[in-house]
Amino acid sequence: MTTYTDLNTPLRTIMTPGPVEVDPRVLRAMSTPIVGQFDPAFTHIMNEVMEMLRHLFETKNKWAFPIDGTSRSGIEALLCSVIEPGDKVLVPIFGRFGHLLTEICERYGAEVHTMECRWGEVFDQEDVIKEIKRIQPKITAIVHGETSTGCMQPLDQIGKACRDQDVLLIVDAVASTGGTPVKVDEWYIDGIVAGTQKCLSVPSGMAPLTYNDRIEKVVHARKKVERGISTEEDRINEQTNNHPTIKSNYFDISMLQDYWGPRRLNHHTEATSMLYALREGLRIVIEEGLENRFTRHKYHEKALIAGLEAMGLSLFGNRECKLPTVTCVSIPNGVDPESVRRMLLQQFGIEIASSFGPLQGKIWRIGSMGYSCRKENILFVLGALEAVLIRHGVDINIGKGLQAALEVYINQPATALVTQ
Amino acid sequence: MTTYTDLNTPLRTIMTPGPVEVDPRVLRAMSTPIVGQFDPAFTHIMNEVMEMLRHLFETKNKWAFPIDGTSRSGIEALLCSVIEPGDKVLVPIFGRFGHLLTEICERYGAEVHTMECRWGEVFDQEDVIKEIKRIQPKITAIVHGETSTGCMQPLDQIGKACRDQDVLLIVDAVASTGGTPVKVDEWYIDGIVAGTQKCLSVPSGMAPLTYNDRIEKVVHARKKVERGISTEEDRINEQTNNHPTIKSNYFDISMLQDYWGPRRLNHHTEATSMLYALREGLRIVIEEGLENRFTRHKYHEKALIAGLEAMGLSLFGNRECKLPTVTCVSIPNGVDPESVRRMLLQQFGIEIASSFGPLQGKIWRIGSMGYSCRKENILFVLGALEAVLIRHGVDINIGKGLQAALEVYINQPATALVTQ
Repeated sequence: MTTYTDLNTPLRTIMTPGPVEVDPRVLRAMSTPIVGQFDPAFTHIMNEVMEMLRHLFETKNKWAFPIDGTSRSGIEALLCSVIEPGDKVLVPIFGRFGHLLTEICERYGAEVHTMECRWGEVFDQEDVIKEIKRIQPKITAIVHGETSTGCMQPLDQIGKACRDQDVLLIVDAVASTGGTPVKVDEWYIDGIVAGTQKCLSVPSGMAPLTYNDRIEKVVHARKKVERGISTEEDRINEQTNNHPTIKSNYFDISMLQDYWGPRRLNHHTEATSMLYALREGLRIVIEEGLENRFTRHKYHEKALIAGLEAMGLSLFGNRECKLPTVTCVSIPNGVDPESVRRMLLQQFGIEIASSFGPLQGKIWRIGSMGYSCRKENILFVLGALEAVLIRHGVDINIGKGLQAALEVYINQPATALVTQ
Repeated sequence: MTTYTDLNTPLRTIMTPGPVEVDPRVLRAMSTPIVGQFDPAFTHIMNEVMEMLRHLFETKNKWAFPIDGTSRSGIEALLCSVIEPGDKVLVPIFGRFGHLLTEICERYGAEVHTMECRWGEVFDQEDVIKEIKRIQPKITAIVHGETSTGCMQPLDQIGKACRDQDVLLIVDAVASTGGTPVKVDEWYIDGIVAGTQKCLSVPSGMAPLTYNDRIEKVVHARKKVERGISTEEDRINEQTNNHPTIKSNYFDISMLQDYWGPRRLNHHTEATSMLYALREGLRIVIEEGLENRFTRHKYHEKALIAGLEAMGLSLFGNRECKLPTVTCVSIPNGVDPESVRRMLLQQFGIEIASSFGPLQGKIWRIGSMGYSCRKENILFVLGALEAVLIRHGVDINIGKGLQAALEVYINQPATALVTQ
């Protein structure tokens, strides 16, 4: 029999677009002894988290809770609860996670219409709106912050157009929520999913989402209460539902509502320690203040970009639509991208990311999210990257990167920021 | 703006059939700073957990990993990856979670055949085998330990018969694994799911599963690599698949294999801290030893039953098929069951469970699982229950319950046990 040692992991500086470093207060919250799932002490925490999520999403929606799964579980929960076979869905794609949306929609039987733009760009909102008017889908599903390309799609006009056309707008805001404004009500977003392991600095394993009464209405028409716990009244109500049952049991939002709502009908057993983590992560967001938090992310992004450009590196992607929490660097000619990443990890304990599909081998992605988005991390990654690139024989402006970042930090101090 | 206090939860004695008390070592493991998902330090841990799960399940299966979701997510992952629309599935039902199996199968388009027995009983294996031969399903899906009734279904002959008939046997062993023998290979189980928040004393939020090459073969014929990361070769291979794509992206085991296997193809972002927790929980199981662990569960069950019966309470369900980790007590006539549970919680900080469907208001369920399955917890719950029942005017044998349990603990000490 193999014996296993005590968990013994290295400490890393994690500068990827997720998972990022977990806030130490969140780690501590997770070591709290648990209580039972229907203990009033726990249902109180569930209610608190719902309220905190409404704040995060800047919404008055009744429903805001996490799915117990990683980010994509939240996306699948929203989509599969709304999509009925044959429904038309429009998916504008500007990176890998747009493809994921199409894939999920297709699996649940949607008639998917796509439009694509080059990776590194986003859509002119007018073009999407035209397509919405032409296709007249039931749903438009779109990514807000595309981690694969570091681009961010403006949504305000698309949201308004969807509302006017009576189209549901479902948004993947996994990489953006908590790091840059995501205004659910103001932008007319009907359903949206955030990530925990990105700008919230909570470990992966929960997918916070919110949706409005327009989605609730669709879900209600498909409602089913689980056999083995349903009442006679439930069964009578279900007979009047003339819409097909939601394919997934685990992701059935109509049942999740009965668990998160006052009926407290058992569905799954809520992931206690992860909910403690999410609560603490949200508490930290609220304590810092959304606006302060967004300012902090922009501030460190500025220092990071200044450093990279002073070093002589080029950023990838249209700067006009840059996602403030992910910075993509074009890989200099002739350098082995994985060798650079490996040396950063092995010598400096720093992790940065590669990318997917057409961008594999073309760009590195540096995340500056949540707790990882700190002055010392930005400076450390710049210094380390310079050293590793020199070691790889890349012709860069030696010594300039850190000076440019320090220029930002010393000459433009973050006086207005509550937290640096 | 509401301000939120530091997480401040009461300490409970959790004697439900889950979630149960988390082992303090597991809680501590969760507060470990995280590393990135493709960090060699993390993929090493993923491999370790796979190996530990094979030990837990007593299997040589290649595939053993957790789904990032609560227990039912693992059940849904196995079922939806195997079920194609129109497939025949036989579900023998002896409690609430048998109904859950039928519901999941139906949602994914199976032709479900059920057989039912009275709650509190299990099936004669021969009766199930007869039905398998008659129906000739593609899959038999069955619960091993039914938490809703505290009954455990023997599976060895059913497994053998399924193998002989070329039927896939998929088992929900959420409540039993780690507390009582679950011999995956010896019993010819093709796919099985365990629970974390039960006998492993890890928080809810992961669903460990394993499956053999018979299931892998079915899944392989439906394999699809996600768009946005698939290669030309993947797309050519997919064209030869003549089976329908798995409905769920999140639960698609063919993609999960590529993430847990050597290809390390990104699917989700593994739930880092929960995996740390699972690893620690499994490490504790291995350290204690499976046989010692099962003996410990039986030992405390014996003391619990002795105490309850000496008090004058009756157990619910056929003793012959009792699940050692859940003890169901018939609620004495005339007592308000919820008032008793409330007083246990409010005055003693002890949680026991009610039940579902036909057993609601009829039985209490006392769990003795994992870290909660300790001498002091058994004695505490017996003493508290006596006091609360007296307070509720129930005619019981005062003072006898604890004496009977002490009789077990003092006169039949657990000398053979490594851990009590």
